[in-house]
Amino acid sequence: MADTNLIVDFEPIGKRVEAKAGITILDAIRQAGLPITADCGGLGLCGQCRVIVRQQLESLAPITPTELNWFTETELTAGYRLACEAVLLGDVRVDLPSSSLILGQRLQVTSNLYEDAPPDSQSDNIIQAYPLTLPAANIHDLRSDLSRAFDKLSEAYGLTNLTASPAVVRNLSPLLRQNQWQITALVRGQEVIGFLSPGKHPLGLAVDLGTTKIAVYLLDLTTGETLAAEGIPNPQIGYGEDVISRLVYAENSPEGSAILAQAVHTTLAEIAQTLAKNAGVSTQEIAEVCMVGNTAMTHLFLELPISQLAMAPYVPAASTPLEGRASDMGLPFANDCRVYIPSCVAGFVGADLVSMTLATGIGQDKRAVMGIDIGTNTEIVLALPGRKRMMALSCASGPAFEGAHIRYGMRAAAGGIERVRIIDGKPMIQTIGKNPPVGICGSGIIDAVAELRRIGAINYRGRFQETIPGVRLGKYGLEYLLVPSEESGSGEDISITQHDVNEIQLAKGAIRAGITVLLQTGGVQAEDLDEIILAGAFGTYLNLDTAIAMNLLPDLPLQRYRQVGNAAGVGAKQMLLSRRRREQANAISQQIEYVELTVYPDFRNIFAQSMLFYR
Amino acid sequence: MADTNLIVDFEPIGKRVEAKAGITILDAIRQAGLPITADCGGLGLCGQCRVIVRQQLESLAPITPTELNWFTETELTAGYRLACEAVLLGDVRVDLPSSSLILGQRLQVTSNLYEDAPPDSQSDNIIQAYPLTLPAANIHDLRSDLSRAFDKLSEAYGLTNLTASPAVVRNLSPLLRQNQWQITALVRGQEVIGFLSPGKHPLGLAVDLGTTKIAVYLLDLTTGETLAAEGIPNPQIGYGEDVISRLVYAENSPEGSAILAQAVHTTLAEIAQTLAKNAGVSTQEIAEVCMVGNTAMTHLFLELPISQLAMAPYVPAASTPLEGRASDMGLPFANDCRVYIPSCVAGFVGADLVSMTLATGIGQDKRAVMGIDIGTNTEIVLALPGRKRMMALSCASGPAFEGAHIRYGMRAAAGGIERVRIIDGKPMIQTIGKNPPVGICGSGIIDAVAELRRIGAINYRGRFQETIPGVRLGKYGLEYLLVPSEESGSGEDISITQHDVNEIQLAKGAIRAGITVLLQTGGVQAEDLDEIILAGAFGTYLNLDTAIAMNLLPDLPLQRYRQVGNAAGVGAKQMLLSRRRREQANAISQQIEYVELTVYPDFRNIFAQSMLFYR
Repeated sequence: MADTNLIVDFEPIGKRVEAKAGITILDAIRQAGLPITADCGGLGLCGQCRVIVRQQLESLAPITPTELNWFTETELTAGYRLACEAVLLGDVRVDLPSSSLILGQRLQVTSNLYEDAPPDSQSDNIIQAYPLTLPAANIHDLRSDLSRAFDKLSEAYGLTNLTASPAVVRNLSPLLRQNQWQITALVRGQEVIGFLSPGKHPLGLAVDLGTTKIAVYLLDLTTGETLAAEGIPNPQIGYGEDVISRLVYAENSPEGSAILAQAVHTTLAEIAQTLAKNAGVSTQEIAEVCMVGNTAMTHLFLELPISQLAMAPYVPAASTPLEGRASDMGLPFANDCRVYIPSCVAGFVGADLVSMTLATGIGQDKRAVMGIDIGTNTEIVLALPGRKRMMALSCASGPAFEGAHIRYGMRAAAGGIERVRIIDGKPMIQTIGKNPPVGICGSGIIDAVAELRRIGAINYRGRFQETIPGVRLGKYGLEYLLVPSEESGSGEDISITQHDVNEIQLAKGAIRAGITVLLQTGGVQAEDLDEIILAGAFGTYLNLDTAIAMNLLPDLPLQRYRQVGNAAGVGAKQMLLSRRRREQANAISQQIEYVELTVYPDFRNIFAQSMLFYR
Repeated sequence: MADTNLIVDFEPIGKRVEAKAGITILDAIRQAGLPITADCGGLGLCGQCRVIVRQQLESLAPITPTELNWFTETELTAGYRLACEAVLLGDVRVDLPSSSLILGQRLQVTSNLYEDAPPDSQSDNIIQAYPLTLPAANIHDLRSDLSRAFDKLSEAYGLTNLTASPAVVRNLSPLLRQNQWQITALVRGQEVIGFLSPGKHPLGLAVDLGTTKIAVYLLDLTTGETLAAEGIPNPQIGYGEDVISRLVYAENSPEGSAILAQAVHTTLAEIAQTLAKNAGVSTQEIAEVCMVGNTAMTHLFLELPISQLAMAPYVPAASTPLEGRASDMGLPFANDCRVYIPSCVAGFVGADLVSMTLATGIGQDKRAVMGIDIGTNTEIVLALPGRKRMMALSCASGPAFEGAHIRYGMRAAAGGIERVRIIDGKPMIQTIGKNPPVGICGSGIIDAVAELRRIGAINYRGRFQETIPGVRLGKYGLEYLLVPSEESGSGEDISITQHDVNEIQLAKGAIRAGITVLLQTGGVQAEDLDEIILAGAFGTYLNLDTAIAMNLLPDLPLQRYRQVGNAAGVGAKQMLLSRRRREQANAISQQIEYVELTVYPDFRNIFAQSMLFYR
């Protein structure tokens, strides 16, 4: 019966899929393309992929020892299972708690940065569109269809020595005859990359391919206008939440690289369809894609070799700009549409950092500016134009700021605690969507730890102080109760544990140490900085007071900070539109000196110091 | 039971295949990749795909009315069937007569033309190979693998602004580490198209893609040496023997274009494997392909649109040089290996004519020269350098010269009658391989018709003269018996019918009319020609005396004729090796004026005259 298809209903989202008996619920979730949280990639090590099965219990294989480890008696009675452990035997309805699923997560696609107007000149456009009216073929004019188009491009626009691939020609002959010999040629450098029906503008996609989320923007390449935008979770999350676990999956699983690449290709095709539909256009009008991302993400996207990226000395396979073909990735765009990925700097300083640096103008004027993009890996760039230097590093800040590795942590989704204040010894919380609290998301954890330090519940080394009211001995050691079970949406206590505080210390210590090393490398003090720019979703939602209070960020006047939103996405839009911007980004990537933390003298000591709170 | 696989054994070649019940023997032959003759593409119209089933007769559906039409009582009793009509119901053994199968056919790959020495300079090479020894990556030198290679190409060879595709990078990182950081970079223009292990030379394939046969040559691109060569039948023959029937198949069958393209892609991959094996090299070292062929063949190969090629005014989709990607065609060559197809002149004057013109040097000196490539379509080029003109046309000479549409015709294979003399009223024959005669191949038919005219068995209009001994009234009208059934290998009489003579008249009339029109267009007489070059297999085996006697070729002294063999293949080799040669071919294609026969004044009259024999 192994070949029989079972029916699995995922609730509350109401998605029904067919699945083979013998696979796990996690496998079925992945097949369904649902973005499930699974830090460990499905090895039973992270306990993130919690699901609830309330009926048809006989449709699942028995609870495993691993699951016994992860759940309380109450949870098991309530039907909790780990999706990666529970094997399907029959039709079943599976509840996906919002804390496990990453739907509805805030995926920022906006920025307050100045966005480029349309390119100054036609020649600055990556894709140039030329309307053509051709003479019809007849017995006295037997030129081939392509020569007819080439001749007109030469006559009318002075373009010579053009080439076109077979794929482009494949489209030309029927299109010409459908449109009474009127057509728009899309030219990229010396190459005709596609033809459009008359009157159509070429479109483009700017993509910020993050480890957690993908932000996609659909632009009109002629006017520079953003027609539609959307943020969606990176579907690779189901194969490992952080970069390293995905590289391990790609290396060790059969076809691992191809599976990870295809997951993103498919998602990108889907979101392009959605954006095109919303904008009332066709994806076949998409003539160029510009994608930024960290080095591992762009390597996985292009299926580049990653063994050498996953072990010392962690070198990229390629760091210069690369161009893939949309058609090779199954993307239904214009015939020879390219996916342009700008230069990266190093194995862990990617094209996204270059894009952010471009969009924020760091290093383009005389001011000393630091740019920080906080994520699972945090990249930091420092420009000291007075000394004609620009340098960058990456620090492994981990996913704690995103709610992972935190006992009651969750991603930024409905019911996530995002603000915490402790007033007169009583915790006051605010949740996303004002839903009943079900867990703590990144900004909430930082708030909570900063407050615990403020009221002395933890000391400057981060140790809980039993004498402070609210600190208690819980199941997992000393902890501070934020929400009692009777007030929580999950029916469980929500507390901050000693382990949670330590995770936050590791994360903020890594970032703070990176800032210190970069300042030392540049030979300047934090006070010398004219500006610190915080990019990315986390940096935007961060409470600056709190971040400074917990010594995550240097203690500078708040007006020297600027929170800019998705700057990497803005840079991707600029590079989608403009040749000049691409050259500028390339120059930035070459100018940036990469600072390798692991060989920095005294790094361990700096890191240890940075984990402390101010006394 | 429709899903059950049957076993079909093809004899005498001993090939066993699995097939589904319900398909025809022709389908099974095609699936087996065997080159069966089937002029009509499997519609039961040509009677070519004869097979014999002697046992297990219950494994086939009953004989159809179409088959009753094509076979005599004796043949039916002997087990003859049409492969396109006979439906498989069970396991069966099928004999493929050599007259139906195109194995063992003479497929000329040689030429007596001077072949190019290796390109004069590295810069003339299409693919330039650069050996590199790179410093290993370490913590103090964190450049990406590609940048490391690019930097060395710049340092050691002065190459800058290079690009490489993701596919090339995919190969680089593992290869570098397997070869202790030694590697050979293959550069094409500004692009690195692949990397080889140290010491390897890049290889190339020159391909002459004919309607009937494919000639493939494996060359060392550094030394210019031909390492191996082979001629094989074009597998598209199973889908229609001539260009038009294949265009119709491509247009009217679901996925027809893709099926025809893939048939050649697969065959090319197989022959590349064979050639590489014979030469002791790997197909992954193949870094460039140069392919010539008639316009329809190259369009089908690249899956270009063909509707406009199949109907008036018959324009190509593209006529400029095109480059496909070997990887897009499933060819297991170097990563970014291109398939270069030179310019064609018109819908029925292809890159093969250009290549032949290049290789024979037509138009490169002061002499007036005509080049003729006889085939199903015959292309003729005329150079009149004194008048600075070069012109070409194509005439639909049909497949009669290849033994098709001839009652007892066959392709040039073992047992085919290739020479005929009638001495003292008695026909003397010579067969290929000295096997017992089973049919008449092209050169034999021409001989026979010329001899029939010489002895007066046919008059100048081609009509049989009943009064001449040997002329008799046969089943199909007046005919001349060449081989009585008791002496033939097939047990049948082999004769030349009135219909056969008319087919030959149509074929030779078309070619002779083309020659006349081209001479008229150039304003010269045949006597003004310094040379007539006959290219291609048929032109090489042609008996010149006979061809002149039957007014197929102009009556010039024999020393003005030159039979050069596969000149198009030689031109393909030259263009595989040399940039200069490609430019030269491109110039030729632009210089050639295309002459459209159908609008030529008085063409019908010229054609009618040309069908006559000399009085």
